[in-house]
Amino acid sequence: MARVVVDVMMKPEILDPQGQAVQRALPRLGFEGIADVRQGKRFELELEGPVDDAALARVREMAETFLANTVIEDFTVRVEEREEAAV
Amino acid sequence: MARVVVDVMMKPEILDPQGQAVQRALPRLGFEGIADVRQGKRFELELEGPVDDAALARVREMAETFLANTVIEDFTVRVEEREEAAV
Repeated sequence: MARVVVDVMMKPEILDPQGQAVQRALPRLGFEGIADVRQGKRFELELEGPVDDAALARVREMAETFLANTVIEDFTVRVEEREEAAV
Repeated sequence: MARVVVDVMMKPEILDPQGQAVQRALPRLGFEGIADVRQGKRFELELEGPVDDAALARVREMAETFLANTVIEDFTVRVEEREEAAV
């Protein structure tokens, strides 16, 4: 089973109030030196079958029609190699 | 300015209702062959100054205390090379 990751982020020109809220909270919590924060969504899709061009095209279509609102959001699709689990 | 990405996902053993809702909607929308969907958060932090070990340690502390709820969520921290803008 292969994992495909879809990252969905607000377009750079769109105001991101969630990211701004995080950014504004950081100095209060003692974290300085963060110039900007953007918050978005990450979808991990486990695909049955091979991740070939057709499968990726389907995921891209899915992201475009359903996972992202492409009026205000950009998305990226990528195959994720199995990584070390962090934390 | 360097970008550090913090991905926050529900731990595998924790129920993810958002991901389930997406997964259940997919067949209705004509997308078959997706065995599982998990939805999480992606934070893009623009750091002032160099991304050295100290900066990454700070980001990790930030993620642990603030961006993720480590009781139910895992997080990963990584430096992102400037990529091609997708979509």
